[in-house]
Amino acid sequence: MASINYYDVTEWNVGNPYEDIGEVINSIIADIKSRQTETDFHGGGKPGAAIYIPAGDYHLRTQVVIDISYLKIMGSGHGFISSNIRFNIPEHEWAGLHELWPGGSRILVDLSPEAGGNESAGAAFYVERGGDPRISSVEFENFCIDGLHFVDDGLGKADPENTYANGKTGIYIASAQDSFRITGMGFVYLEHGITIYHADALSIHDNFIAECGSCIELRGAGQASKITDNLMGAGYKGYSIYAQNFGGLLVTANNIFPRGTSSVHFDGVARSSVTGNRFHSFYPGMLVFEENCTENLVSSNHFLRDHEPWAPMQALDNGIDDLYGLLYISGDHNSIIGNHISETIGKQYIKPSGAKPVIIRVAAGRGNYISNNHIVATTEAAKTQSAGDGSCFSAQVGALLTTEELAALDVTAVLIEKESVQNTVLDSGSEAQVVLDQKVNAFRGTPVPLQ
Amino acid sequence: MASINYYDVTEWNVGNPYEDIGEVINSIIADIKSRQTETDFHGGGKPGAAIYIPAGDYHLRTQVVIDISYLKIMGSGHGFISSNIRFNIPEHEWAGLHELWPGGSRILVDLSPEAGGNESAGAAFYVERGGDPRISSVEFENFCIDGLHFVDDGLGKADPENTYANGKTGIYIASAQDSFRITGMGFVYLEHGITIYHADALSIHDNFIAECGSCIELRGAGQASKITDNLMGAGYKGYSIYAQNFGGLLVTANNIFPRGTSSVHFDGVARSSVTGNRFHSFYPGMLVFEENCTENLVSSNHFLRDHEPWAPMQALDNGIDDLYGLLYISGDHNSIIGNHISETIGKQYIKPSGAKPVIIRVAAGRGNYISNNHIVATTEAAKTQSAGDGSCFSAQVGALLTTEELAALDVTAVLIEKESVQNTVLDSGSEAQVVLDQKVNAFRGTPVPLQ
Amino acid sequence: MASINYYDVTEWNVGNPYEDIGEVINSIIADIKSRQTETDFHGGGKPGAAIYIPAGDYHLRTQVVIDISYLKIMGSGHGFISSNIRFNIPEHEWAGLHELWPGGSRILVDLSPEAGGNESAGAAFYVERGGDPRISSVEFENFCIDGLHFVDDGLGKADPENTYANGKTGIYIASAQDSFRITGMGFVYLEHGITIYHADALSIHDNFIAECGSCIELRGAGQASKITDNLMGAGYKGYSIYAQNFGGLLVTANNIFPRGTSSVHFDGVARSSVTGNRFHSFYPGMLVFEENCTENLVSSNHFLRDHEPWAPMQALDNGIDDLYGLLYISGDHNSIIGNHISETIGKQYIKPSGAKPVIIRVAAGRGNYISNNHIVATTEAAKTQSAGDGSCFSAQVGALLTTEELAALDVTAVLIEKESVQNTVLDSGSEAQVVLDQKVNAFRGTPVPLQ
Repeated sequence: MASINYYDVTEWNVGNPYEDIGEVINSIIADIKSRQTETDFHGGGKPGAAIYIPAGDYHLRTQVVIDISYLKIMGSGHGFISSNIRFNIPEHEWAGLHELWPGGSRILVDLSPEAGGNESAGAAFYVERGGDPRISSVEFENFCIDGLHFVDDGLGKADPENTYANGKTGIYIASAQDSFRITGMGFVYLEHGITIYHADALSIHDNFIAECGSCIELRGAGQASKITDNLMGAGYKGYSIYAQNFGGLLVTANNIFPRGTSSVHFDGVARSSVTGNRFHSFYPGMLVFEENCTENLVSSNHFLRDHEPWAPMQALDNGIDDLYGLLYISGDHNSIIGNHISETIGKQYIKPSGAKPVIIRVAAGRGNYISNNHIVATTEAAKTQSAGDGSCFSAQVGALLTTEELAALDVTAVLIEKESVQNTVLDSGSEAQVVLDQKVNAFRGTPVPLQ
Repeated sequence: MASINYYDVTEWNVGNPYEDIGEVINSIIADIKSRQTETDFHGGGKPGAAIYIPAGDYHLRTQVVIDISYLKIMGSGHGFISSNIRFNIPEHEWAGLHELWPGGSRILVDLSPEAGGNESAGAAFYVERGGDPRISSVEFENFCIDGLHFVDDGLGKADPENTYANGKTGIYIASAQDSFRITGMGFVYLEHGITIYHADALSIHDNFIAECGSCIELRGAGQASKITDNLMGAGYKGYSIYAQNFGGLLVTANNIFPRGTSSVHFDGVARSSVTGNRFHSFYPGMLVFEENCTENLVSSNHFLRDHEPWAPMQALDNGIDDLYGLLYISGDHNSIIGNHISETIGKQYIKPSGAKPVIIRVAAGRGNYISNNHIVATTEAAKTQSAGDGSCFSAQVGALLTTEELAALDVTAVLIEKESVQNTVLDSGSEAQVVLDQKVNAFRGTPVPLQ
Repeated sequence: MASINYYDVTEWNVGNPYEDIGEVINSIIADIKSRQTETDFHGGGKPGAAIYIPAGDYHLRTQVVIDISYLKIMGSGHGFISSNIRFNIPEHEWAGLHELWPGGSRILVDLSPEAGGNESAGAAFYVERGGDPRISSVEFENFCIDGLHFVDDGLGKADPENTYANGKTGIYIASAQDSFRITGMGFVYLEHGITIYHADALSIHDNFIAECGSCIELRGAGQASKITDNLMGAGYKGYSIYAQNFGGLLVTANNIFPRGTSSVHFDGVARSSVTGNRFHSFYPGMLVFEENCTENLVSSNHFLRDHEPWAPMQALDNGIDDLYGLLYISGDHNSIIGNHISETIGKQYIKPSGAKPVIIRVAAGRGNYISNNHIVATTEAAKTQSAGDGSCFSAQVGALLTTEELAALDVTAVLIEKESVQNTVLDSGSEAQVVLDQKVNAFRGTPVPLQ
């Protein structure tokens, strides 16, 4: 063994990590606890330990249960590859592929939960501890959690491997916790990547979380945390980032690509920030603030919405129409400042047909401040991409780049719904593009050329 | 030993790391130096080494002195827990707690400096080298420095464990240095977390620095550095971030919670950035620019000031009143653009009593540009939180969230003091909320509804 | 060996890592491939491996060729030091220096390519794989790639060690790839630091890339990647960040210092973000958008341009004059919002002599939105710095700080060239400082004081 308080899962004396790494890690945790015998009233602590997962394939058939502070679980590679592209290649072509599965230090989640069922039962890593103090400073670093397959969701809309449903969760934290870190990880083909209740001073930083139903869900309530510098993209049913009753969340420097029913969905969140991110989505409702979100800042983000370019996914969407708002705000005193918002969409895809899409919509609320957003709306030609070429790379780059001159698309830049008052809209659309009641809201239209 | 130029403190042949890790690391450094005998004129260098601190409790009774480049000291866990919450729980309840102390790879700083005394004497890690070149590329990563206790500061205001005073410093860098990295660390219960003189190309990234008197102090002068993506919160007497005579500092993506006499305090700083951070404070003077700070950018930040919710700390504050400015600017040509600023405070807490709080105050200076800041000011009910429940978690979330409708609080959104000229204030408050001399400063009030 | 799928280059049984680490790593890669024999149709993968490079000096005489996914190469130190300062100290003074060369886990690139020649031939690490899927999840972490010397470039302008030319590249990725990570690395004295073709979901995060001809070049095309939180600075001939035909690139939280013919140069890039960075340059053309860059966001950045303070480099520049634009925009529908831009330059350095420098220039394009930028232009006294003191530290801090009152410099804040239409310029300069045709572009000047 390399050192004290350091465990290599391939060198532990209970279980076989290749057959069931869950049994091995639980046995290691039991060992750590059995050695924490100090009463520690005079400065001695229960310092925890590190568990190392070398690069390799490790089946997990027993859920890992964590109830000690200061545990670090770490690997040697986030191991992401697109499983979705591969599952949409005809199976007879698989033999020609270099590799079929994700890699790195890879946990194969071989639990058998029901799709859409009890989420905690389907979690590879489950954290819970009652009593005081809250469990603290558990760290997950640089390994891969792979849900392997999606399954038939009974809805009949998507091929089983395209449903984003399998009841599996990567990391599920059930009880209040403090100062956790999730860094450099990979998550793929999980119905839920990371689900955390009652987070405080949490850091989710520099991970790769993609092809998961939802990527990050912060539930219950929480405070003073950060989701920063991640590459992410959820499924058409889930959220890339979801937060509930949170205060002081910082969402910054993330590059969030499709799909995701929303890129960011806040439910009763207050005094939080969404700044300096890049968001790309295929549907309206990219950013949703509901249940009275208050005093949040959305600034310096780049939003792009275009049409799904990839054939196997084109029949699927989040069910939201273009009048809902690309950014939907329900709540008071939020700030939407200095964002760039691009929407490029063929007119045949707009729902309801013939509607004028709404970009920023204040559905309800007072005192919101919407200033200096640049909204660019264009039509694009329809694009179709077959799955047969083994990659949606070229099609997506094509969708992102606009070298041809695109026709302008007529949109409602900002819509303040009736009964919303005391909102301020400045320089975010011309008089013709903004709909509000100037008697009860303040407005200054973006100037237009003199001729 | 795992490898060459790699030292595990628990396997070294001098000293006992559990009794005095300082003696062990100093002996390792001496060994590294004794092996660096090459004259290295033709490409061979003095590459340094890595020192690994496994998870564990290590008393430090001898200061570590670093005077070689390319040293990396690393552990397996930042190990933060709130010591402050625990010290404010009655001692007879401690037996029921899961753990009492921070953990991970934890240095227990058992030096005995005077509180408020010679700071370098109380430093766990002391870096200094004269001559040329400047010492370069020392890295600190993923371990915990714990100052253990605060002590009576003789001021009689706070219980000894709440004074933020003990004369201890985590890392103290006394001489000019280049390209240092401090990453993934934990700092707790130190009077000074990190103190650095003459920094160049420094990176302080993704650390947890809380319950320290001051968190980061960059002194002397410095340039071209970054403080990014940290979770931090200083004491009521100190600074979360302090910088002096710095050029080109980038402070971004940090989530800085209370307390801290200031969240950011710049003294003679120029051409630096404070962008995309989330700041939370209990006092005025959250951001202070003094001694002619020039040409700095403060943008896309979320500022929240509310009232201390936690009983053991409610008698303490930074002594600054509400007329000082929540953001205080002394200097020329700074930019304050696109920030969200929330102040929510019961009227009974405003000092001086009955005063109208000032949010952005230009105390002195010309050419500052203050644009598109959204200021939200409300009153709140008084809140009190007993220390008995072992956690201030619920109370703080309560403070962060505002589900009830709060009454508006009358504030001066921007105040440009007399003799300050050529400043520009745009869309950061209505005509009624901004105080300046329009003859010598430019102004455009945020528009208001027509009725 | 510490673990399975974990290789220490100093313990491998083929080659001598100190003499030729390239031979050793290639042999390790061959071993990994020879062990990947599973057909892996049922969940078993090819998980890759980790290769560890301890702190030390390793000559690389054979190019490393990577053609497997999930390979992680990692060291124990980025090892940067300024070689440029040292090479400009008289050689007889070298004996008095603490160290002469970079360190950490250091690769000495001892290939002999031609300066400016076939770049891939001069690459220390070369990645290429044909077929499907794209090579995925290779990670480079925390080691140093040192090009050792620059050479005579035949242009006669610079001393050989100041040319930024030697034909060497740190990491060269020739084929389309997915989800690569480059983190915590050091790059120094390479003509090209990182050159990547066809990137998807790439992360270049928290590195130190300086004293390289160009730092990061993303070529061909690419999408959905991030360049975040790096310290960088290229040579006077190259780019700190270059991207071509990219969609969805996020450049944020970087501190980019001189030199660099540009800090950021985009060629045909669309729907990308440059936000929250700090940029410092000695020449015009700090940020260049050319070949129809569209719908990009440049916000919340701090730009500083001043004059080269260091004597050995003062004869060199990028050849661009002050009418070109400090920010040069060619393309449509870009957003330039909320930046601080400082230019401080002695009048004697302005080219052409007597010209009025242009800060933001839209050379061609429609629909660009330029709003709320604060431009500060001042003259400075000429400064000269001898190389003899072993450090340009003090001189550079001097250049960054402005404690004296500087005289205002008359500039064109924004210039919209003829035939550019439908652009919008708001609050980014007074009527006297902005040049555009108001008949075809929209304009609102920054207000000025009433007297």
